[in-house]
Amino acid sequence: MEHKISLQRAQEILLPHCAPRGAEPLAIEQTYGRISARDITARENFPAFARSPFDGYAFIAADTFGASKSSPVTLKVVENVPAGKVPTVELTPGLATRIMTGAPIPVGADAITKFEITEFTADSVTLFDEFGSGKNIIPAGEDVQAGSVLVKAGTRLIPPLVGALAAQGITEVEVFKKPRVGIISTGSEVTPVEVPATPGKLRDSNRYTFDGALKALGCETVFLGLVEDDVAKIAALIDGGRELDAIVSTGGASVGDYDFINDAFDAVGAVTLATAGKFRPGGAFAFATLDNTLLLGLSGNPASALNTLYAVAAPAIRKLAGEADFGHTIIKVKLAEAVHNSQRVTRLMRGTLDLSDGTLNFVQHAQGNGMLTSWSGCDVIAIIPESAANLDAGAEVEAIRMING
Amino acid sequence: MEHKISLQRAQEILLPHCAPRGAEPLAIEQTYGRISARDITARENFPAFARSPFDGYAFIAADTFGASKSSPVTLKVVENVPAGKVPTVELTPGLATRIMTGAPIPVGADAITKFEITEFTADSVTLFDEFGSGKNIIPAGEDVQAGSVLVKAGTRLIPPLVGALAAQGITEVEVFKKPRVGIISTGSEVTPVEVPATPGKLRDSNRYTFDGALKALGCETVFLGLVEDDVAKIAALIDGGRELDAIVSTGGASVGDYDFINDAFDAVGAVTLATAGKFRPGGAFAFATLDNTLLLGLSGNPASALNTLYAVAAPAIRKLAGEADFGHTIIKVKLAEAVHNSQRVTRLMRGTLDLSDGTLNFVQHAQGNGMLTSWSGCDVIAIIPESAANLDAGAEVEAIRMING
Repeated sequence: MEHKISLQRAQEILLPHCAPRGAEPLAIEQTYGRISARDITARENFPAFARSPFDGYAFIAADTFGASKSSPVTLKVVENVPAGKVPTVELTPGLATRIMTGAPIPVGADAITKFEITEFTADSVTLFDEFGSGKNIIPAGEDVQAGSVLVKAGTRLIPPLVGALAAQGITEVEVFKKPRVGIISTGSEVTPVEVPATPGKLRDSNRYTFDGALKALGCETVFLGLVEDDVAKIAALIDGGRELDAIVSTGGASVGDYDFINDAFDAVGAVTLATAGKFRPGGAFAFATLDNTLLLGLSGNPASALNTLYAVAAPAIRKLAGEADFGHTIIKVKLAEAVHNSQRVTRLMRGTLDLSDGTLNFVQHAQGNGMLTSWSGCDVIAIIPESAANLDAGAEVEAIRMING
Repeated sequence: MEHKISLQRAQEILLPHCAPRGAEPLAIEQTYGRISARDITARENFPAFARSPFDGYAFIAADTFGASKSSPVTLKVVENVPAGKVPTVELTPGLATRIMTGAPIPVGADAITKFEITEFTADSVTLFDEFGSGKNIIPAGEDVQAGSVLVKAGTRLIPPLVGALAAQGITEVEVFKKPRVGIISTGSEVTPVEVPATPGKLRDSNRYTFDGALKALGCETVFLGLVEDDVAKIAALIDGGRELDAIVSTGGASVGDYDFINDAFDAVGAVTLATAGKFRPGGAFAFATLDNTLLLGLSGNPASALNTLYAVAAPAIRKLAGEADFGHTIIKVKLAEAVHNSQRVTRLMRGTLDLSDGTLNFVQHAQGNGMLTSWSGCDVIAIIPESAANLDAGAEVEAIRMING
């Protein structure tokens, strides 16, 4: 069990415990945003045949040798091929085929012209320029070659990739099952959202924040319950989630008198991986494993807990979901305003990446631990190094790009 | 009706015809990613009461005046308040309250210390430093003030905002209905995905690409059908979608012999807004309105059609979905490699924004009109101006940030 670990180590320590838990076949129209569980090999060239990029004429490029405005070449049109039809006449010198956008190239032809730059009649076309062999022909397999890997395992299936599967005649693919993640809210001061406000109590916002945030990270969620600061009751909720891939709890993850999550982890027989990180906010956490279930005990402070989720746990969750490219995208940003780091710990600061002037400006939002609304529009978490006491506006720091769901 | 319009004009011409089509009440846990239809006013302060950010002691700051390591101050602990409990004893000079993370501040107290930097017994605490009034107190309403607008109409409800609604005891909100968008695939050469490949035919990838892309833009989709190049049949499909908010068709949007979408628009009595843009790819389009239904006729070439969707139509669709902030985010990127613009039209180039070295590098992907797989990882569309014949690597151009689903 490690204690007071670095941001880097906190990310790493979770990864060996994260592997996708099986695959399921889905119809392609159900797979948007899902992660392919297999390498998918192209069965066919896409496009399947060499074709015309526009309405015009197919011909033999050599026939246009020496052609110019003053010395045009006229060819005999022997066929008219709409899209969806296949040319039947092989071209020999002096012949051309009228051809529509997307139509296959006739045998013998090796160049295409747009009709707009020709003069034509029903049975002839006149060209005013030389064409090289292959000019304006979209080759077969321009996008995808038969036998090549179209989609690698671990790839997120964005709409154009689903389209590319459809183009191959692939109607079903194996995708990784979504991680099933339980949510537990703890805290004797926390009430369900429906309960009227009473002094000293606050409503369970974390349940909803983490439900949405985990779904945006590709998980299915199950709410296991809201429970007071009681080791046995917290342990019972965790125990009820043993079949899940992960459980995210909020509250009780610090080292105070009423911070019971570690005791609850012990009570269910979980193996604690790490407690507390040398960064803030979000440094109050306890990570453990219970057989194959990852336990992420986060702070009860909404913004602290979100920082731990986005800055520390997100790569682990993406790995659990099967994404091959699960790591953070780290960028270098310029601070739009000065930052004071009086406590000399690594600071995580949420903010917006403003790219409008061609530089990577980091615009910080309000950073209060209890704040939820200041996450609006955040797409980046800047990392202020422990070594930096004060940073002026314009100073460059690393930052994590995030999806704020 | 306008023809051969600029990229800017093509975006603008759609906007007057896009307004959200009503709202629906939803339980907050159903609203992730949805757009609020109303200004939502905070009923209460959040946090509701001034509270402690950590486990420690509450006291009167003035009691610590002059305190130091060599001259500490010892206070009498009169109460122990866990989170979820309310202090009952008002502090007067010389008294302190043991207090847990999240607990309300006792009446009379105006500062908090962490317990770790004190010395304490069951009924006393010793402080070794001066504290200013208000030190370490999270004020009531730090995040949200009662009566303020918590969520503006037209805001996308990201998870922390849904959490902020829950914190207010708000369990249901009015969100804009998702735009209902029909999809029509046209082209005599296009077959359903299940059909075995035959010469000259290609499968209907556009149906799936646009289904996913429109869903990612916040729409519900309805597949209206795949139809050959036949005006009456295309018109019949459009007519069947009159109740929808928009219809996206692919194919037949150019000016060739078999480009029938304009005739189909006329046949159903639609009013054409514009045909063709002075940019490529994606400049082959026809936009129209049929009563309250927006008709977006796109190219049959997958990549051309996606360019029109993302670069031209996306703001209109976001406006239709009710997003207040529907416009493109335009950034300035540096070309990672030279671009030749021999045809002197505005070119749209898809690619990836590489921010790893602190600059906005635009890494272009393969640009073939028929290509689907090269959209993988694209998050930006660079705009190469009509006026630029050739641009060297490092040249700066504007680009549209996009969500690639």
